[in-house]
Order: sequence, then structure tokens, then C-alpha cells
Amino acid sequence: MLGAMDDDTPSTPARAARWTWEDFPVGQVRDCGTVTVDRDAIVDFARRFDPQPFHLDEQAGAASLFGGLCASGWHTAALAMRQMCEGYLLESASLGSPGIEQLRWLAPVFPGDTLRVRMEVLEARPMASRPGVGLVRSRWTVDNQHGRPVMTMEGWGMFARRQSAAG
Amino acid sequence: MLGAMDDDTPSTPARAARWTWEDFPVGQVRDCGTVTVDRDAIVDFARRFDPQPFHLDEQAGAASLFGGLCASGWHTAALAMRQMCEGYLLESASLGSPGIEQLRWLAPVFPGDTLRVRMEVLEARPMASRPGVGLVRSRWTVDNQHGRPVMTMEGWGMFARRQSAAG
Repeated sequence: MLGAMDDDTPSTPARAARWTWEDFPVGQVRDCGTVTVDRDAIVDFARRFDPQPFHLDEQAGAASLFGGLCASGWHTAALAMRQMCEGYLLESASLGSPGIEQLRWLAPVFPGDTLRVRMEVLEARPMASRPGVGLVRSRWTVDNQHGRPVMTMEGWGMFARRQSAAG
Repeated sequence: MLGAMDDDTPSTPARAARWTWEDFPVGQVRDCGTVTVDRDAIVDFARRFDPQPFHLDEQAGAASLFGGLCASGWHTAALAMRQMCEGYLLESASLGSPGIEQLRWLAPVFPGDTLRVRMEVLEARPMASRPGVGLVRSRWTVDNQHGRPVMTMEGWGMFARRQSAAG
């Protein structure tokens, strides 16, 4: 049912899910690699979704608390999501997420910054209301090239359990 | 310093900030209008940021827990942000946000759904570390055309205080 997609072929036949709920034990850490944030992508995202001046314009950014044109926090979150998809979600029996806790925007993300995304499993338990599904609570950390955390969050993911995925 | 922007003129001269921290008292409710979610926009966002099959492909969506192709939760959050920008942030002395609590994705968002975004002020206090800045904690609610909540979250916003904005 689940498959990896690329930008040109969203209907590619599904790739078998390699990782089920059992493959996300408490304490596991996964490095989801890096992404460099492009200035035009910052402005494009902001025009669509968060057109506050400090996300659109160098002068307004310089005059803001951030000290320069910087990415919408929602853009940073979306970029982290992309890294997690490529890092493990597209190869897993992911069933979506019911929500996020404690999303923190700790420092501005500037054009040219390179962000590293990591996840750590904090908690894992079967989902009471759905026998074939397990819940995983993770902490995601996004650091910039100076090793400074720019965003952290904790969130829940739902994954098929092995007997279910194999059935 | 802060101005309203449109998609074509990101460097438009700033519009005066009409609302400062004092204009967001506890209990205030603001309706930020509606947005109808386009199928192609769902797929475009998913290709860029969240290429899980149920956000890209009708068949995979139908086979998922969601029951159909549905928007990435991050897309729903970004659309809510846009409504808040248009509803009040672009006319306010907004200084950004330190974070979000308790983001809940309660129901899938399908192509053609019309989402209504509302905010309610839960808490307002001066920011201890910055004399000219006030914090506002808000609950944001996103309902679909059936009146069903699809997303809720609580988050903090920073706003210039009146004496600061006028100075």
C-alpha cells in the first residue's frame, strides 16, 4: 500500500513497507540528513502561506527581531517533514499522525542555512482503539550548520504493526 | 516596519501596524474567513514536503486510514497561517512566534473542502525579557464545511506594545 514517490511520478507502484511499528523502539535515533534552505524558496513559501514582511523582504527582516530575512516557521517544519519522509517514513508502514506537541522555533532560519534533521523515539505503544496499529512518540530536532537548534518538536506517528503489515 | 504584501509586490512599502499587543485581550475571538482546498494544491504541497502516498494518490488515499486522498497536516497548518495573516497578522505589529502547543489533526482534509479558521485569545502578558513586547496565547480552530474541526492548536505570538509601536 505504501510507496516511495518522486516529484515526477506520484503514481509510481508502491514499494513494500520495510519498517513497521516494531522497528521504532524507545531510544532509537535516526539521522534524516541535511537540507540547504534557498532564499527564493523562503520567499515563495512565505508568499503562499505566511506573507509577513520579515519572511519576504531583506529590509523588513533586518529591522525585525530576527535580524534578517528568515524562513516562516511553517516552512522549517515542512522541510523537516520532507527529511523525515526521505529518512524513514516512505520506507515505513506510516499511517499518518494525530498531532504534535511543543513545537519550538528557537532561532531564525536564514537563506543558505543547512539544516540537519534528527528524530529520537521517546515512547512506543500499541493503539488501544486499533489492534493493528502502534503509536510512536518522537522528538525531532533541527540544527543549523553552526550546531544551533532552530526547531524542536515532539509528535505522534501511527504505524502498522508487523502482523498487520504482513497480513 | 510591518506591512501587508501581495504575491506580486513583496517589497511594497509597509502599511502602518493597526493592532498592537493591547488589541488582543483575553477572550477575544477573530474569524479569519474561509479557504477552499484545491486538489492540485494538495498534491503540489505533498510532492514538495510530505510525499506520503495518501497525500499524492487517490488509490493510496482510499486504502489508507483517511479513506481518500487528503492534505498533509502541514499543508492545513500553512493554510490556516495564511488565513491568520489576512485576518489580522498583516495589520498587526506581529513580531513572530516562539512556538506552538498541542497541534491536533482531528480529521482528514479532502479536495474541495472549505475550511474556516478562527482564533481565540487565551492569555496575554508582557514579555519579561523584552519590555516593548507582549505575548499572546491563542487557540486556533479550523473547521470544515460540515462544521467538523479538522485541526486545532494553541500557540504563542509576540506583538509590539503600543508605546513601543508608536515610538
